[in-house]
Formats: sequence, C-alpha cells, structure tokens
Amino acid sequence: MVSRFSDVERRGVYRAIYERRDVRSHFAAEPLPDDVLARILSAAHHAPSVGFMQPWEFIVITDPAIRAAVKRRFDDANRRAAELYAGDRRRRYETLKLEAIVASAVNVCVTCDPTATRGHGLGRQTMPETAIYSAVCAIQNGWLAARAEGVGVGWVSIIDPRGLRQILDVPDHVVIIAYLCLGYVTDFETEPELATKGWEQRVPLAETLHFDRYGRVDGARARALATLSEAARIEGAR
Amino acid sequence: MVSRFSDVERRGVYRAIYERRDVRSHFAAEPLPDDVLARILSAAHHAPSVGFMQPWEFIVITDPAIRAAVKRRFDDANRRAAELYAGDRRRRYETLKLEAIVASAVNVCVTCDPTATRGHGLGRQTMPETAIYSAVCAIQNGWLAARAEGVGVGWVSIIDPRGLRQILDVPDHVVIIAYLCLGYVTDFETEPELATKGWEQRVPLAETLHFDRYGRVDGARARALATLSEAARIEGAR
Repeated sequence: MVSRFSDVERRGVYRAIYERRDVRSHFAAEPLPDDVLARILSAAHHAPSVGFMQPWEFIVITDPAIRAAVKRRFDDANRRAAELYAGDRRRRYETLKLEAIVASAVNVCVTCDPTATRGHGLGRQTMPETAIYSAVCAIQNGWLAARAEGVGVGWVSIIDPRGLRQILDVPDHVVIIAYLCLGYVTDFETEPELATKGWEQRVPLAETLHFDRYGRVDGARARALATLSEAARIEGAR
Repeated sequence: MVSRFSDVERRGVYRAIYERRDVRSHFAAEPLPDDVLARILSAAHHAPSVGFMQPWEFIVITDPAIRAAVKRRFDDANRRAAELYAGDRRRRYETLKLEAIVASAVNVCVTCDPTATRGHGLGRQTMPETAIYSAVCAIQNGWLAARAEGVGVGWVSIIDPRGLRQILDVPDHVVIIAYLCLGYVTDFETEPELATKGWEQRVPLAETLHFDRYGRVDGARARALATLSEAARIEGAR
C-alpha cells in the first residue's frame, strides 16, 4: 500500500525545492547545532546510489586554519576567473559574492570513491559515471533537508581541485565532488542572486522539453506542461 | 527574514528523502496525469546549477516503439552484465528486477549540454564537471517531488549509452545523464530492494564521516552524529 503524503507534507517538499538557494551572503554568526548537521548528513546518506554502492564520504570541516587555506585557493581561482571577463560583464562578476568559506558555520567536502567494490558493480558496467552521480544526489538531498531546517548551503566550485586535494589530504583515487558552506542564515532570497544581479535568467521550462526523441519539440505541449506546473511553483514560493 | 518550515512541512521533506525508492516493480497500470508529470519536471528544472547555467534537458518518452527499442538495449546489456557474476551472486543477480521501461507510465531521458554558454562559464573554469552535476541535482529534485506525489522513479543505468544516443537522436555534444522510468506505483518498499534481496547492505552513516581532513576519523564524534540523526530517519520512515 502506498503511504500518501498529506497536502502539507507535499507542500513542504515543493517549498524546499523552490525556496532552496545557493547561499553565499546572509550567513548568521550562530553555530550549527550537531543535531541539525547530523540530520542534513543523514539525508545526504539516504540518497539513491547505483547498485546501492553508497560511494559518498563527507569531510566535516571546522578548523579555521584549513578554512583559511581553502579561502586562499578560492581567492586565487576567483582572480583568474575574473580576468576572463571584460567590460560590463567583468564589473558584474566583481559584484558577486561567490563563497562563504570562512563566514559560514561549517564546511563539508563531499567526495566519492568510484573504485569501491560495494554494490558489486551492479549498474556500473555500462555507465560507470553513475558512481559519481550518486554522490551528487546525496548533495541535493542534503541541500533540501538543509532548507527545511532553515540552513543555507553554498556550493563553491571556484577552487582548483588539486589545491583542495592537497589541503584536505584526499587520496588520488577519491574524487572531490563538491565543497559546501553551511550555516543558519538571516535570509533566503526569493530569487537566485545570479538572476537578480543580472548575470543570467531562468530558462522557461518549456524550452527544456523534447518529446520521444531529442530535437523533437512540441511547443504547444511543452507550454501546456509548463502552465500545469505553475501551481506547485506558486505553492512552493508562497 | 527566514521563512520557516512548519513541523509537518519539514516532515514532508524527510519523508520524501527516507521513503524515496528506486522503483522497478509495483508500477500501476494507470497513466501519469500531465499535471503530475509537469510538477515533477518543474521541480527538476528548479535544481541548483553552476552559474545558473540550467544545462539540463528532458526527453519525455511515451512512444511504445522507442521504449521497446530501449528495452532491447537493456536486455543486451543486462545479459552481458549477468555474465560477470558467478555462483550464488549470479543467481541473486538474476532475481533482481532492474528496469520498468515498458511497464512504467512514462520514461524520461535527462541530458546535459556542457557546451552551453548560459551562465557565462561562471564556476566552470576550475570544475567544468559541475555542469553535469547540475543535471544530476535536477534528477534528485524530480525524484523527491515524485515521491511526494506517490509516483515511483527507477533509474536504469544498464544500457549502453551509445545505443540510447542512436535511438533517441541525441547529438554527440549532449551528454546522456540518466534514463528514468516513472509512474504511479502500488507500493513503495520500506527498504531498498537491493538490501532486502541481500545484494548489498546500508553503510552506517558514521563510516562515511571524516573530520577536517580526509582519513581523520573520529569514531566517537561520528557515532554521536549518527545517533543524533536517528530522529529524522524515524520521523521520515514513520
């Protein structure tokens, strides 16, 4: 028998999805209690994984010296990244806050060991990359749980992973998937900061849809589906 | 101001996380209404993405001929995969139901175009793989929304992606991330089928945790966090 969700439980899921933000500003000074951190990590650990491989690992980072070292690596990478832009785009880039490595309560580095034999290779003969994908699903589970707890998460990808590997002693066979900043926040913005600051805009859902084959678009059907989805979005964004 | 979740909304998020299953059996014969499919796709589309790149696309597949062709590719790959196991493990493998390509209401192939310029490369200089990861986050968003809707999702990775590319006309520069089977189900199992059928067991959360550096384990702290996480799991699994 299917255990149904009540309307309010279902609304909770959509709220987490639509009100989740990639948070870099607004982190509060207060610490993240262990029970909240534990619930977020456990949510991540209950992600789907290919062959029930569970290839993810979590490095919980609080040491200020390590965080300062990671921050320096971010600063280096961010300086080089900024140099790729010119004119107005460059000015826009420089207004963006793209990390909260030191300002957030705790950092979590998510890794994946694709060489692990757990799961006995099931599902990985044809698509071995699904080991990595499982670890990414864990991140998204944790991110949504965090939103439900009022905790912000920011994913920092502007770091040379080789530098991160060195600082965190990550062995060569282990893949660094993500470096996350977590903590209570004073605010969740209603729209992504990259949209409000004019960096990029949301794509209409209809433009992401193909039918039966790639490239077979059906504007009327795609727009009908996009319109039908609005109820959940509005409910989530309340 | 942070818009808090009520206890019931938060419970909904944890229920979705803990009661989500990779579903291959128990698909019901009834169709999936467009409004439900639309809400699931929109949830996926509201995933985080590097630089707000939104690199995902969704091929919604209902055509029986295409699904039959995909099923044949699964059968080929599954036969080859089975041959890698021997003895008891082989017998166990053969009891597993690993797809519902034809039995489910609708299939969705999730793709990612890592060459898209949307997002202006932000966050992708140092870790270009985050484009792919964004598409995986979209899958997990959709998976949890589906659970809240009473809809099962099964991720089929036992297919040669080259075969899938041919059947679905996916261009070479577009990455095939996942082939998903969706539909209402008659049951969500309380534990993953790979656990109940003795293929693989759940790893204790404590074993996935490192502190400050990879390899720096702290058994007492890890077990304390694992114990603290129990409340959410029990609430989710009710």
